[in-house]
Amino acid sequence: MNDLDSLIRLFSHLPGFGARSARRVVLNLVKNKEKKFSPLIESMKKVYETVDTCPVCGNFDTVSPCSICSDPRRDKQQICVVQDVADLWAIERSGAFRGHYHVLGGLLSAIDRIGPEDLRLDLLHDRIIDNQVQELILALPTTVEGQTTALYIENELKGITHITGLAQGIPFGGELDYLDNDTIFMAISSRK
Amino acid sequence: MNDLDSLIRLFSHLPGFGARSARRVVLNLVKNKEKKFSPLIESMKKVYETVDTCPVCGNFDTVSPCSICSDPRRDKQQICVVQDVADLWAIERSGAFRGHYHVLGGLLSAIDRIGPEDLRLDLLHDRIIDNQVQELILALPTTVEGQTTALYIENELKGITHITGLAQGIPFGGELDYLDNDTIFMAISSRK
Repeated sequence: MNDLDSLIRLFSHLPGFGARSARRVVLNLVKNKEKKFSPLIESMKKVYETVDTCPVCGNFDTVSPCSICSDPRRDKQQICVVQDVADLWAIERSGAFRGHYHVLGGLLSAIDRIGPEDLRLDLLHDRIIDNQVQELILALPTTVEGQTTALYIENELKGITHITGLAQGIPFGGELDYLDNDTIFMAISSRK
Repeated sequence: MNDLDSLIRLFSHLPGFGARSARRVVLNLVKNKEKKFSPLIESMKKVYETVDTCPVCGNFDTVSPCSICSDPRRDKQQICVVQDVADLWAIERSGAFRGHYHVLGGLLSAIDRIGPEDLRLDLLHDRIIDNQVQELILALPTTVEGQTTALYIENELKGITHITGLAQGIPFGGELDYLDNDTIFMAISSRK
């Protein structure tokens, strides 16, 4: 296998890629060597060398602790618990939250043999105590695993801080006709 | 903008990518630093340093002339003309052709101001003479530009070699109900 084929193969193993899209991207890079290929390699090298998991919250960043944990303007007494770094980034983009985060790195799952000890929960406990956290927001998915994990955290930590969860209902711009039954059921039951 | 954001931005400018898929790929790389990120960077560097346009046919390869042009088992007296390297790779994957290629790098287009002098046609003429090419297969798209280009090449070169085109009809596994009218019209008119 030549170098071009191995590069296409590596790309095709990334999420959202197949053989066809990998070839398309590699061809595009080769056609734009100076404008796209070279800057992409440089940027990847830089990120590869500097990116790391924040020892405090579990976010990925090129500085440690991450830029959120080290921002003095953010409220240390609010912690939002998320499953994954992708969820943290999504909440950051919304601009609705100015506290700190805690990335679990997974959810409790009997099938995948993920127990509480795998989810950085000791660290969360210590952070709550050390920073006198007033509110812990559980921003976990509304799946069985997500809700099991939320329930577990609630039971473990309800004595030491106030625990809240995300509001559930109809998404912004959501048309009733296109929403699933469970969402509509939930939105009607929790009407206010 | 931090390094992670600039990397996501670079990815989002690649074909088939948007902001969401770029974030997803970057997160996946960061989560698999040794297994995916590092090998991808190494492979990209290698390709970046060695890949080039084949001076004979216009293919991309890490050797020059490309591995197709330098393969002595391939028939030098057949040349297949394609618009783009992606088309060359597609024909190679089919395994149906064992001759040589000629990549035009575009199609005649009045709107995009692409004239015959932009399409490596002088080179094609010389290759036909030098190698006593017996057959020139025009594998160009069935668009207005593709057919205009095919017609132009036919008029220019029909005196010095035999010119053929790809068969047109129903694709393999194609169900009539799902095919567009033009394809069905073509397939019926060209029945054999």
